[in-house]
Amino acid sequence: MLVVMKAQATEEEVRAVCESIESLGYRAHPIPGAQRTAIGITGNKSPMEPGSLEEMPGVQDVIYVTKPYKLVSRDVKEEDTVVRFSGSDGSFGSHDLGIVAGPCSIESREQAFTVAERVARAGARFFRGGAYKPRTSPYAFQGLGEEGLKIMAEIRERFALRIITEAIDNESLDLVAEYADVIQIGARNMQNFSLLKKAGRMRKPVLLKRGMSATLEEFLMAAEYILSEGNYQVILCERGVRTFADHTRNTLDLSIVPAVQRLSHLPIVVDPSHGTGKRNKVLPLSLAAVAVGADGLMVEVHHDPDHALSDGAQSIYPDQFDELMSEIRQIAAILHRNVQEPPRVQTAAVKAGG
Amino acid sequence: MLVVMKAQATEEEVRAVCESIESLGYRAHPIPGAQRTAIGITGNKSPMEPGSLEEMPGVQDVIYVTKPYKLVSRDVKEEDTVVRFSGSDGSFGSHDLGIVAGPCSIESREQAFTVAERVARAGARFFRGGAYKPRTSPYAFQGLGEEGLKIMAEIRERFALRIITEAIDNESLDLVAEYADVIQIGARNMQNFSLLKKAGRMRKPVLLKRGMSATLEEFLMAAEYILSEGNYQVILCERGVRTFADHTRNTLDLSIVPAVQRLSHLPIVVDPSHGTGKRNKVLPLSLAAVAVGADGLMVEVHHDPDHALSDGAQSIYPDQFDELMSEIRQIAAILHRNVQEPPRVQTAAVKAGG
Amino acid sequence: MLVVMKAQATEEEVRAVCESIESLGYRAHPIPGAQRTAIGITGNKSPMEPGSLEEMPGVQDVIYVTKPYKLVSRDVKEEDTVVRFSGSDGSFGSHDLGIVAGPCSIESREQAFTVAERVARAGARFFRGGAYKPRTSPYAFQGLGEEGLKIMAEIRERFALRIITEAIDNESLDLVAEYADVIQIGARNMQNFSLLKKAGRMRKPVLLKRGMSATLEEFLMAAEYILSEGNYQVILCERGVRTFADHTRNTLDLSIVPAVQRLSHLPIVVDPSHGTGKRNKVLPLSLAAVAVGADGLMVEVHHDPDHALSDGAQSIYPDQFDELMSEIRQIAAILHRNVQEPPRVQTAAVKAGG
Amino acid sequence: MLVVMKAQATEEEVRAVCESIESLGYRAHPIPGAQRTAIGITGNKSPMEPGSLEEMPGVQDVIYVTKPYKLVSRDVKEEDTVVRFSGSDGSFGSHDLGIVAGPCSIESREQAFTVAERVARAGARFFRGGAYKPRTSPYAFQGLGEEGLKIMAEIRERFALRIITEAIDNESLDLVAEYADVIQIGARNMQNFSLLKKAGRMRKPVLLKRGMSATLEEFLMAAEYILSEGNYQVILCERGVRTFADHTRNTLDLSIVPAVQRLSHLPIVVDPSHGTGKRNKVLPLSLAAVAVGADGLMVEVHHDPDHALSDGAQSIYPDQFDELMSEIRQIAAILHRNVQEPPRVQTAAVKAGG
Repeated sequence: MLVVMKAQATEEEVRAVCESIESLGYRAHPIPGAQRTAIGITGNKSPMEPGSLEEMPGVQDVIYVTKPYKLVSRDVKEEDTVVRFSGSDGSFGSHDLGIVAGPCSIESREQAFTVAERVARAGARFFRGGAYKPRTSPYAFQGLGEEGLKIMAEIRERFALRIITEAIDNESLDLVAEYADVIQIGARNMQNFSLLKKAGRMRKPVLLKRGMSATLEEFLMAAEYILSEGNYQVILCERGVRTFADHTRNTLDLSIVPAVQRLSHLPIVVDPSHGTGKRNKVLPLSLAAVAVGADGLMVEVHHDPDHALSDGAQSIYPDQFDELMSEIRQIAAILHRNVQEPPRVQTAAVKAGG
Repeated sequence: MLVVMKAQATEEEVRAVCESIESLGYRAHPIPGAQRTAIGITGNKSPMEPGSLEEMPGVQDVIYVTKPYKLVSRDVKEEDTVVRFSGSDGSFGSHDLGIVAGPCSIESREQAFTVAERVARAGARFFRGGAYKPRTSPYAFQGLGEEGLKIMAEIRERFALRIITEAIDNESLDLVAEYADVIQIGARNMQNFSLLKKAGRMRKPVLLKRGMSATLEEFLMAAEYILSEGNYQVILCERGVRTFADHTRNTLDLSIVPAVQRLSHLPIVVDPSHGTGKRNKVLPLSLAAVAVGADGLMVEVHHDPDHALSDGAQSIYPDQFDELMSEIRQIAAILHRNVQEPPRVQTAAVKAGG
Repeated sequence: MLVVMKAQATEEEVRAVCESIESLGYRAHPIPGAQRTAIGITGNKSPMEPGSLEEMPGVQDVIYVTKPYKLVSRDVKEEDTVVRFSGSDGSFGSHDLGIVAGPCSIESREQAFTVAERVARAGARFFRGGAYKPRTSPYAFQGLGEEGLKIMAEIRERFALRIITEAIDNESLDLVAEYADVIQIGARNMQNFSLLKKAGRMRKPVLLKRGMSATLEEFLMAAEYILSEGNYQVILCERGVRTFADHTRNTLDLSIVPAVQRLSHLPIVVDPSHGTGKRNKVLPLSLAAVAVGADGLMVEVHHDPDHALSDGAQSIYPDQFDELMSEIRQIAAILHRNVQEPPRVQTAAVKAGG
Repeated sequence: MLVVMKAQATEEEVRAVCESIESLGYRAHPIPGAQRTAIGITGNKSPMEPGSLEEMPGVQDVIYVTKPYKLVSRDVKEEDTVVRFSGSDGSFGSHDLGIVAGPCSIESREQAFTVAERVARAGARFFRGGAYKPRTSPYAFQGLGEEGLKIMAEIRERFALRIITEAIDNESLDLVAEYADVIQIGARNMQNFSLLKKAGRMRKPVLLKRGMSATLEEFLMAAEYILSEGNYQVILCERGVRTFADHTRNTLDLSIVPAVQRLSHLPIVVDPSHGTGKRNKVLPLSLAAVAVGADGLMVEVHHDPDHALSDGAQSIYPDQFDELMSEIRQIAAILHRNVQEPPRVQTAAVKAGG
């Protein structure tokens, strides 16, 4: 921390601030400048917060310096974290991009299988689908619950896709951890610390979405909650933030990708479906996300979005997903990264089965 | 809903959109204009969302018209909701303002009693204090838990103050509902729909804080979750929203007070402590909140904020709270409202006891 | 400035940063902490900006400390600036609030006189009206230009009102400075530095509106441009900022009033008409603005807003303005400030004349 | 426009609103729905704004439908506008991307030539450099003025680069139009309508930057000002918007690229330097901008950013620009677009000369 004194602050005022700092158990380092004095503070340790310095006579401003995250930081672990899955070549944070696709909600076995077959055939290794849906309105479709989870467990077996699905409370978290391969924590729950802690005690990787108005620091601190409970398998996900701009549902903040990669060893993927809310913007923003260096994508795909029970307007058609995979494969290559080809054997099995 | 066609849209395109609307079970009402045609849609009913109209040929824009909230709306109930408490003259939404004061966190029995004695003596009828604290950092003080709730239950008996405290998950909600008079749902949990539904099944009033980037519609829809489960005793609370402005911790949006009062029958109070994050701004913004017509205030008070375990920088001193009460009493009178005087008998008892 | 080093930064890296700082002509002050080293920088002087420190090995972050404004700051002048007008008892920054009222645009002599007569009778000392209108659309009414200025000059003589009107470029600034008493610089021009400098060379006070997304620092720096040219008569005006919130046209940020008053000696008024964009919110937010401590108000009043050529939806009726004046008079009294009574003689003259 | 009535609105109230609409010269189209009635309004024509409908009894909401821009819209001109330059193969909006590079400010002839030689050699066809700098602080370097323009005119001759530079007021606009090939209007002046109109009367193309908090509609309306004066050669430029996010100087909103392309025929380029404010983010965001489909880039390049007089922290080194050109060339190819190769003859001349 740094205390900036006013230009007219007296020596007594500077001394009083230093004494107050020392009385709280820190060390004060006055730095006299041409115009004013600043006072560095070292030895920060929780839980004390020297919150009243700003109100002392002669004080202009108090500036926080030390970043509060630890385990998520490259200060603690310099090399990239790679989230891998036994018996699968899908991963997040490796040379290969992690491509996640599927419908917003699992609506029926038929719908889910139809979409899963197409995304697997296009080369995705991860299937997304909501069983528990956090909806703005209590009157909107809330998801199939455990039935949806069971359908996805079948999809894993049938199409060799790893399953990512959202847990919205402690109850659903137990079930999601049982059926799925990756536990998703949604944007609205990014600061549901109780849920984060419980997810941190699970043995499954967690995909954590950025909150709608979360700063980079808050986003990393939310991940820190999970790591601090012992679960180091965290994948971050940018999904757009809330701004004044009204031409998209959210404003996709692609600059957070290199910003995260600079500070943290955790992988970060991008969700252009929620990030834009409009089908015709999913493809261009997907290409941009790969070009900016994201470790993967999370895309909503639906074979009949007109009749989707949620998020129809932002779901792309399977044919559009084929095109997307083809284009990001080329862009990834330029960045010396890779989008995996469809698994040959699996595709054959699917064709036989479907 | 309203579909706006492009200027060059052909008659066929207009007809195709109308047919698509009707095929989804709605009625289409084309409105030919000088420049372009618009198509009104009636008969909206969940769960279908005609999400793909925007992608049809000739379509310029799709505009949502019908507000999705029902029970919170003055459409359903025109007269103001008043939240009352048996055996107490404190209330929210009546002629009397509901004044809530207390420390951010319950740190100890002594600290809580010291603050409670002062806020009761100044005329507050409601005591706030955190037992479960949603902290950005996992390493920050997380609250005393049930021990904190017990201290507050004692405070209710001793100072005749009604207790408001936050529940952060389903587990703490059960305990809060047992010990407290009002269940607080914090800003970070405004869209924790699982928690909202459970709070909707409780028999205690709920104080719901606006999320950091919640629109008016989302705020009312979150309340709708509580009402839709049968709990009509909801108090809304504005606590500042996240913007680019950096001179305060959040930007207090006082205009939402008349906006809520126009659309909804629910009472709305203002929290200038979180709304500004700075002690020297709590008093002026409290006066402004009363002047704008809020149904009450929620203010952090601490007798020793330098050593507070959380939010010290935004807690005011008891003497400042006395001044605040005196000034808002005068402003309330101008608006033909009332801030209650300290209860005479109670104050005497306190003095004898303390 | 302060450079924060990474936890793993080596001594060589710290030394290299210090040398780079010194090579630019500054002094470096290393502060070793428990976790990491910070380096204070003193001797900041323009125009050099050590912009590349952040890219040096071992550097975590660079934090700017010194505020760049000087003349607007209480560091330079501690006592409040009061803007007064010879031969008038209206002022900004004194014990008396400066109340500015009038139509958005001057549409005709008759319209302007009708409104002026009413706002003068209610006690306003300042009349606002647009002659040059910065409109989002080139097809919207752009103002009467010099004809509008002449009408306002007549109003000054007839009703003893001081005239405030906007200049939108260097050409209109010359005319506004000739006809008006206060030159208004609008929100869209807050960083039109060419216009600010020219206004700084005028002998008339300047009312400077906050830009739609201006930080406090940028707002004060825009004022600094005017003062730096020799014009110290600047009145700041909060008029709402742009956020995600959609229930008002802008989000009125009342907390900037005490924030400005803490840092600067300049008076600050509030415009609740643009700040909300809705007539039914102008009255409550006006009361709030006075309660928060603003030095005045700027309100749009129109006798026939349905037929106004601009901003009809946010203009209040003259009767509502009477009510507003009555209520803010009472609130001002609580804060030991004053809203002036209507001038007796003037009112009589008006009645005789009108 | 559309008026949405309250659920309880009476038939009389609906009728009164319709009559009010018709009395203003429009046609009213009531649409009775299951829950409430909506009223479509056609025949909108300026300058009347039916601003008071929202205040009438029974009215819930008023929704604006018709977009106010005309000339910039694909409604008026479906095919893309291409801005070309006689005697040059550089362009904006064609198959070829328009790549603009150069220092933030022209600081000296030597500095400008050094940078120009490098960006020309890398294949850029456009050189940017500030002669008039809109700086937040009046004490910061304000540019070399006409001397800077003359240096850039020399650069045009020497390196066959087209010159883009900012005009900040009517005076500098005349000079910029004389010396440069493209007139830049900066973000702070996006709603300086006086300047836009004057730029609209020039015979040179205009590059218009998005304002810091401009919506898509406002951005297009600002361009409309230029077109409405007869200048159809407008290039739009996204340069980041202001949000709560603090890890970059602005939040680059790449989704506006496809959004503009859907509504308007004008070309749009992206400025990742101002859009991020950090050198280490310019390269990844440049790749993303090309991938999202932008018609070009505008990048700050400086051979010695440590000693730059402005924006050093966000300027990339010439070697980084070489790398950038190489990578965007590959990405453009995937999108079936092109980044031009360095002109062979010109490069030879440069080498001989430099």
